Formats: sequence, C-alpha cells, structure tokens
Amino acid sequence: MVYRNHSERYEFGLKKAFHYVKLLQNGNYSDEEEAVLLLALGEQVPFDLHRGMFIPTIENQGTDEQRAQWLPLAQNYRVIGAYAQTELGHGSNVQGIETVATYDKATQEFIIHSPTLTSRKWWPGCLGKTATHAIVIARLFLDGKDMGLQSFIVQIRSLIDHKPMPGVNVRDIGPKIGFNAIDNGDCSFHNVRIPRENMMMRYAKVLSDGTFVKPKSNKLVYLTMVQVRATLLKTLGERLAAASTITARFSAARLQGRKPSQEGEFQVLDYQNQQHALFPLIAITYASQFAGAAVVTMHDSALNSIKRGDDDFTARLAELHAVSSGLKAWISDKASEGIEICRRLCGGHGFSQSSSLGHLFAEIAGANTFEGTSDVLVQQHARYLLKVLAALPSSTESTTFLNTWKTYGDGNLRCQAQTSTDFGNFDLLLEAFRVRATRSLLTLAAEMKSTKNDSNFCMILMTHTSAAHTELMLLEAFVRGLEVLPSGAEKKALSDLCSLFGAWLITKSIGDFRQDEYFSSSQAQLVHKQLVHLLPIVRKNCVLLTDAWDFSDFELNSTIGGYSGDIYRAIVKRVDDEPLNQTEVAPGYEKYLKPLIRCNL
Amino acid sequence: MVYRNHSERYEFGLKKAFHYVKLLQNGNYSDEEEAVLLLALGEQVPFDLHRGMFIPTIENQGTDEQRAQWLPLAQNYRVIGAYAQTELGHGSNVQGIETVATYDKATQEFIIHSPTLTSRKWWPGCLGKTATHAIVIARLFLDGKDMGLQSFIVQIRSLIDHKPMPGVNVRDIGPKIGFNAIDNGDCSFHNVRIPRENMMMRYAKVLSDGTFVKPKSNKLVYLTMVQVRATLLKTLGERLAAASTITARFSAARLQGRKPSQEGEFQVLDYQNQQHALFPLIAITYASQFAGAAVVTMHDSALNSIKRGDDDFTARLAELHAVSSGLKAWISDKASEGIEICRRLCGGHGFSQSSSLGHLFAEIAGANTFEGTSDVLVQQHARYLLKVLAALPSSTESTTFLNTWKTYGDGNLRCQAQTSTDFGNFDLLLEAFRVRATRSLLTLAAEMKSTKNDSNFCMILMTHTSAAHTELMLLEAFVRGLEVLPSGAEKKALSDLCSLFGAWLITKSIGDFRQDEYFSSSQAQLVHKQLVHLLPIVRKNCVLLTDAWDFSDFELNSTIGGYSGDIYRAIVKRVDDEPLNQTEVAPGYEKYLKPLIRCNL
Repeated sequence: MVYRNHSERYEFGLKKAFHYVKLLQNGNYSDEEEAVLLLALGEQVPFDLHRGMFIPTIENQGTDEQRAQWLPLAQNYRVIGAYAQTELGHGSNVQGIETVATYDKATQEFIIHSPTLTSRKWWPGCLGKTATHAIVIARLFLDGKDMGLQSFIVQIRSLIDHKPMPGVNVRDIGPKIGFNAIDNGDCSFHNVRIPRENMMMRYAKVLSDGTFVKPKSNKLVYLTMVQVRATLLKTLGERLAAASTITARFSAARLQGRKPSQEGEFQVLDYQNQQHALFPLIAITYASQFAGAAVVTMHDSALNSIKRGDDDFTARLAELHAVSSGLKAWISDKASEGIEICRRLCGGHGFSQSSSLGHLFAEIAGANTFEGTSDVLVQQHARYLLKVLAALPSSTESTTFLNTWKTYGDGNLRCQAQTSTDFGNFDLLLEAFRVRATRSLLTLAAEMKSTKNDSNFCMILMTHTSAAHTELMLLEAFVRGLEVLPSGAEKKALSDLCSLFGAWLITKSIGDFRQDEYFSSSQAQLVHKQLVHLLPIVRKNCVLLTDAWDFSDFELNSTIGGYSGDIYRAIVKRVDDEPLNQTEVAPGYEKYLKPLIRCNL
Repeated sequence: MVYRNHSERYEFGLKKAFHYVKLLQNGNYSDEEEAVLLLALGEQVPFDLHRGMFIPTIENQGTDEQRAQWLPLAQNYRVIGAYAQTELGHGSNVQGIETVATYDKATQEFIIHSPTLTSRKWWPGCLGKTATHAIVIARLFLDGKDMGLQSFIVQIRSLIDHKPMPGVNVRDIGPKIGFNAIDNGDCSFHNVRIPRENMMMRYAKVLSDGTFVKPKSNKLVYLTMVQVRATLLKTLGERLAAASTITARFSAARLQGRKPSQEGEFQVLDYQNQQHALFPLIAITYASQFAGAAVVTMHDSALNSIKRGDDDFTARLAELHAVSSGLKAWISDKASEGIEICRRLCGGHGFSQSSSLGHLFAEIAGANTFEGTSDVLVQQHARYLLKVLAALPSSTESTTFLNTWKTYGDGNLRCQAQTSTDFGNFDLLLEAFRVRATRSLLTLAAEMKSTKNDSNFCMILMTHTSAAHTELMLLEAFVRGLEVLPSGAEKKALSDLCSLFGAWLITKSIGDFRQDEYFSSSQAQLVHKQLVHLLPIVRKNCVLLTDAWDFSDFELNSTIGGYSGDIYRAIVKRVDDEPLNQTEVAPGYEKYLKPLIRCNL
C-alpha cells in the first residue's frame, strides 16, 4: 500500500473489501474467524463503517419494521451505508450540529438541508465515494420548534448508476495522515426529501400528523457507545503491541557501537536508554490488555444489572462511562506516542515505510480525536470523580479508595519504603498511587470551589486528576491480572514487568508523589534505582514478552520485525518492489537531468 | 504533493530542482534570495545534498587541484553528487563502516568494494536515481594495512546515458515517512576501480608508491560539522514555528463548545488545555532562535580564535561541539513532538493533509536520527560536562556556573520564592536552573564513579544531565535576548512568554527542583499557579507572537493556517483538487461495488 497515492489506495481498498465480502458470503466463518480475516486486510477499508456503524445503528435505534426493511439489504450489501454525524464546523460539540430536518406534514416527509458552509457533513468514512445511504444526524424541526438531534436514513447515491441523488452534493475530502484507503466524505444537502419512515424511531417518534413522542430511556444506546470504546481500547493495545514487537526484534538484531573491553558490538537492546524507552511500552500494552478486560467485565455486569433492574444501575453506568473515558484518553495518547518512540528507537530503518512503523502511527494518530477528543474525555472523567467525592462513601469498584480520603489526603502520611526493592511491593505501590490520585482530586476540588466551578480555569488539574486515577486503575488491573496466573517463569517475568511499570510511572510524575513529603527526596532516588535495577532483568525476557502476543510475520508486515531476526536480507529484498527501480534510468532523466549533465553537447 | 506516490513525487521533485537551477543560472540572486527560493520548493529535492554535502566536501577536503578539477563541473551540474557514508549495518557507529578501498600500486588505482550484505551504502540522498558521482566513505587498505576511513569520489552513473557504471549496483530504497521527493540510495560496489587522484587528499594523502601521509590538524573540518548543525537548529525552529503559527490561527478561528453563561461558542484558543499545550511551543521556538544565534556567535568566535592561534582554541571547540550536540538532541525532540502536539490541537482538520501539519511532521521526524542520533549526542554532551567538572574552574561561557558548584550542590540551599509571581524574576529562575543542572551533573559524576565509568549504566542520568544543561542554556539565551530589546509592548510580550517558558519547564521536571528540598512542596504549587496565571496573559499576544515570524500563506500552504482566518472556505476549496473527485462515480464502482449492489439484476 505504501507505493500508492490516495486514489490508488482507495481503489485497492475497495478491491480488498469486495473480496473480503465475497469470501464471507461463500464461506461459513465464525465471528472470530471473520475478525482475523478483517485484521489481515492490514488497514481500514471502505466497508468497515458500514459494518461497524451503519448496521449497528439500525439494529439499536430502528423499530422492528425498520430493522426488517433495512437490515437484509444492508447485510447483503444491496445498500452500503455511512454514519454522518461530524460536520465541517462541529465535532466534539455534538450539540452544535447545524444540519436540519424539517417535517412536512402535507407530504409526510422530512426535508434534510445544510443551511451553512460549516454544516456540511465532513469526515464520515465511506461517505465520499462508496455509500449509497447514510445515517444522517440532524436537528429536527416540527412546526418551527427545535426537537433536538435525531437520526435519519438518507439515500446518497442512485442504486442504478451510483450517481449522487438530486440535491446531494458529495465527494471525498482528500488525503489524510492515515486511513487513505477510506473515502471520508464531504456532503451537503439541498432540501432533500425523505419519507417519514426514514427517521430512526425506536426511541423518539414523529407521528404522521407531526406529533412528537418523547423517547423512553435510551440507556442501552449509551451502553453501545461504551462497547465501541472497549473495542477501541483493544485495538489501541494491539497496535502498540505490534510496534513494540517490531522494535524488540529489531533491537535484538541490530548491532551498533563497539564494546569497550571485548570484541564485537553491542546489541542495541543492551543500551540502557533503549531499554528505558521500550520496556515501559511493553508494560503499557500488558496493562491495557488487563484493563480492557476489566472494562468488558464491568460492561457485562452493568448489562446484567439493567436486565435485573437493579437500583445501582445508573451508578454503574456512570462509572463505566467515566472509566472508559479516562482509559481511552490515556491509552490513545500513550499508544500513538509509543509507536513514534518505537520508530525512533529503530533509527533510520524505522523511518523507512518497510518497517511498518510509519503505517502503524498513521492509523492510530487520529485516535486522540475520534470517538471522543481527549480534552473532553478527561473532563468527563474528572467531573465524575468530583461527584463521587461529593457523595462519599462510594460503592463502585474503581473509586472505593476514595472512602479512605482522609488518611490518603493527610499531609502527615509518609510512604514506608526503606530500600529501592521495597518499590517492588505491589501493596506499597498501589497505596502510593491511591494517595496520589486522592490528593490530585482534592486539589482539583479545592480549585473548583475557589473558581466557583469555572472548569476552564481547572482544565490542567482535571487532566492531571484523570491521568492519576487512570494510572492507578492500570496498575491495579495489572496486579489483579497477575494474581490469577499460575506460579512459574511466566508469572515471574510479568511480575517484574509490572514492577517496572509502577516504578516508571512514578519517575514520570515524581513531583506528584513528593507532594507534602509523602515521598522524601531520598525515596525519589530509590525509585530511580529500582527502575534502573529492573531494566536488565526485564531485558532477559523482553523478546519473549513480545513473542507471547503471537503476531505472524504476515500481520506485522515489517522488514525489521520478522520472527527470524534476519532483518537486513528482508530490507534489501523489499526494495525490489519499489516502482522507481523497475527501470535502470529514472523516467525523469531525459527531461530534467540530461539537459543539465549534457548541456552543451 | 500529497496526491502523489513516491515515484510521482520524485519526478516532481526533479522537475522543481531542475527549474530552480535554471532560475539561478539565468538570474543574479544573492545567497539570501537563493535560500528563500529554495524554501519555496516546500520540501527537500534531489539536488539538495549535491549542494549541501557533495560540493562542500570537495571544498573542504579536496586539494587545490581536486577543487579546480571538480568544483566547476559540480557547480554547473555537469556532474551531480551524493555523500555516501551510512551503510545498511552502520550509521551512528561510523567506525563500523565496512566498505573497503584497496590501493593497487601497479595501476595507481583504488579498488572500491562492498564485502558484505551490511556494507551496502544505504540512505544517501540523491544517490538512488539521480547522482552521477558520490563521495564514498570507505576503509583504506595499503599493503593489507588498515589506514582508517577516507573519502573517495566514485562515478556512479554514465555521463552519456545515465546507466549505472560497471560494478555499481544502485537503486532507490523505497518510500519513507518523509522526504519522498528524494531518492535515497541503496548502492554496492563490486571491485570498482578509481584513479588515485579521486581520494580526497587535503589532509591524509596516498602517494603514487603507496606511501601514506598522515593528516595535519583537521579541526576546520570539525568546525564545518558544527556549522551544519547550527543550520539544522535554525531549520528545526522554523518548522516548529510554522506548525505553531498554523495552530494559533486555527485555534482562534475554530469555535467549539457553548459558553456556560452567554450566547455563542468558545474559541478553541480560550481553553486552558489548548493554551497549556500551544504556548510552550511558541516559547520553545523563540528560545531556539535565541540559542541558535548564540551558537553562531560562539562558532564565529571560535573561528577567529583559530585564526589568531589562541591557546584556548581546543577548549572552545570542545564547548561548541558539546553545546550544539545537547541543543540538537533537545530541539529535534521537542520540534517533532511539538508538531505532533499541534496536529492534535487542530483535531480532525489537523489530521487532513491539507493542514500541512502531517507534512511538517514527516519532514522533521527523521531529525532525531540524522546528523547525530540523540542517544549519542546527549552522551557526548554529558561527557563534556563531566570533564569540565573534573577540571574546574571553567572559563568557557556555558559552564561558568559550575564554578559555584559547592553552593549550588549544597543540600541546605533553598529557593527564595515566596509568592507565585516571584517565579517571574529571571535571576531567581536562572538560579533554579543552575542548581538543577549542577545537581544533575553531580549525581551523574557520583554514579559514574560507583559504576567504574561504565557509561551504559548511567545513560539515563546522562540524558537527564544533558537536558538539564540544555534547558538552562535555552532559558539563558532567551533572557539575554530580551535584555537587548528596546522597552515596549513587544518586549513585554516576549518577557511574559519567557516567564511562561521557565515556569513550564519547571513543572515538567518538578521532581528535579524538589531534590533535597531546594523547592518546598508549596513552592511546587506556586510554580503551577504562576503558569496558570500567565496563560491568559500570553493568550492576548499569541497570534501576534506567531504572526511576527512573518510566514506567507504560500510558505505555510495550510488550509487552516491562512492569515485571514477564513479556514472553512479554504478547506472546502482544496477538496476540488482531489483526483478522486474528478469523476462523479469512482473508477472502482464497476468492478467492486456494482456486483454487490446490483447482484441479482
């Protein structure tokens, strides 16, 4: 794919998507097998949002009649759909959406219209050149009255010749950092009429006479959003895992720098700086996997709680939303930052597209924005924690530590570590993270009070508080994950990695732990010592720790990340494919080089 | 350029390079005008290394005869050259280079040969498809004896038909993250014979009978390297400046999120998190510009010192090398990280290639590796500081503060700040950074002693020490730069930015400043308070602070960074150019969509 420009990649993406669909239609694959096959496509393809957003929206927000009408068509690709929410002018602030849907009682139709430049639908994947239909989020007007945002199915292109429908102006938004096999759309509507039945009416309804029926609880919709986020956490972890695997293998194979005393050169993996940069990323990946699993458990338990009609359902849902927000913000930040760190750790060869690290970065860099911008998510997380603090005691799992806030917040409390290895004690580590998260929240609460709840003056502290709580949750998830493992070499290796994770997190934010002398100056140095002590220990297992994720060479598609470690032969071989190398003399020679080199011949 | 793949971009790069050369040949431009025109090309083009490395190497390392022979040819593009040092297996460790040059007395020729897979020349820009000649760095053997690395001019392609010369296997290495208009080369030599006169002999020489004449001092060569690095510092600063300008303008134009009390929406620039992420980048750019100018002054003064034959010449050269190493490592890190931060701050629109932020990142990301990998540079810097510490007192400007090491290293010393605004006092700030740099160095020195100088156990501390000293130098350069400005609004605005820079740097590494209670826990909170206090103050000037760099819309080439702030119209207009939009229905429809949508028709 790296040899192609956006148009070529889109066409190749369509080709892959088409054959994927044909494969599924002709075979009999389980959901798991389907997922593996999808991953093998190596990038997002145009039908992904049809499958991931268009169909689920109809499933979740459509009435039984709407599901019966649309799902068979969509599942058989007789219609191909997009999900059109984001506009040129509004993304994070969904309430700012400007597209309007006005009900016309006379004809029982909605009139979909884009009133301004900034109301153009912008970004929806698959909308630019592929989709025949889209779920369009628009502001509903009934008799001139604003009824808020609703979802409508709008036909975008003809089912006969694929030309845009009258009144629909649709095209591709052009090349992006990543996702260039996808046609993100730019679409505006000029008084496009759709039948009343095309509004998604499982919750809110518009009757034929224009009467608006308010929705009953739509908390299940809310839960779907969390499910999408849990999947994203998994994907983010997998991408960072892939980058770490490539980097661990490269670092073991690459020799650079003569050893001072003996013959030969160092493996790059032997350098302290390389270890200090790479090993925390491996730890983050494991921690994310444990935390992701914990979110799934939380989600399933909340779902059961709804089904049973438990009283604490609302509290569980709020926790789930807050926790997944904080995790998503933290992990998307660390995954994209981490992949870029990996690229640098592989030096020049990491800069070549054949390493695949550039591709991994490009596919993940947008995750800080899509499915919730980090700045918004950390605020939602922090506001939740403020609410819990204001209504203690808490009974939800992730915040029970706040019930001990008086102890943790007490300025006379001191960490008990005496030696560097004391920081390998998980109880001592977890206490330190609980103290830090508590104090961060208390500082935020005090600042909110003194600024009369003007959150814009407290955003830095909110971000800080969200990160402090998220890091506690990640460490807790890692420690809990270890507890259920059988004793043995694997558990020991992961346990060392978990210790390293804790020590590394502390050194990154040592100022927090030193607040009110909870850590002394010499304890700060002990943590550094512990971290340095653990690096050569984790070094012994680091390739195995990444091998354990079991990526195939096909999946990694990296010249420097192959299982065999034969990196140089792979790099040289890949160059055979470069189109520029198909002729001895470059096509530009005659026009741009010969006139200079042979100018007066 | 974003619509093209690597082959297309290379050909377009050649075209731009060709017309640039023709323009210069036909016009009469000053060096400064040439530089502006070059910048206008918007990316690196194939002749850049001919001009930047091939010609300067002949100028600096060629004898008078060699200069007379080669320079007119090169300057008139009758030969086009590359600089071939890096190999597949060795980059940072130059001494690991494997290409050999064996002298054949009988024919008075050198035989250039690539003995192993890893000895292939890999990465040299312009070598793949463009260059007719290259400076090849190879290990010289005379009568079987290794005489170390030397430089040779080797003909790569025919001057008649541009085909590779016999024994030369040369091609392009394929697509990269950035620089895709350049043909980086993969080249191996199979016993290629070149005349004795093709070895660069200004310093070392090989006489016709095979006698080796050792070089006299080549310190001027050393100084050239520093000059290249000073130019790079300037370039890095300019790229971060461009990204900050785009982001400041976008943030002022973008509205998102309803204000709590009043009508309308917030400008994104009003959000505390946006300010906290962006303003330090603007400050880094200014600090880099002042520090870059200081390096140039240091360089010129060292050059005069050589010319005068001063005693302290060696000391000045060592300082210059160390200082430029530390600055290059720090600024290349912060510039690429900063551009990525800018991209995120522009949300979805930053992810579009039309923002230009992706291009700026791709062109700068490699700077952490080329012209000295950061890991190596920070070690060289830290080793220099250790040497200075061991031989105090120091008389070189950047390390005179170490003469006060006993005071700064004294664990009873306390910072005198009483209020948050005390951190706006530059003397107090500078003392804090001197204390921190001193203590970091003392800790490193103690650790080196206890590990018997095994630097691999001290790399984290070395990195830390280099950063601590570099940040001190940057703050000092900023403060010194302010001192010479005339009083007025500009000086006040920059002075606030400098305060913000200092406070921000402290909060990023607050643990260092708290070491041995130099800062108390409450002083740590005061610094945060000062930072938060400065954000709305810098907010007022931030667009002007970036406008001051005077980028034209043509230079920025960003839909969201135009001077007018009319971002949405620019974004929509740019989409007209996307090749996918040249037809209403995508070319892939017939093959991949129609068979699904109309499957049983």
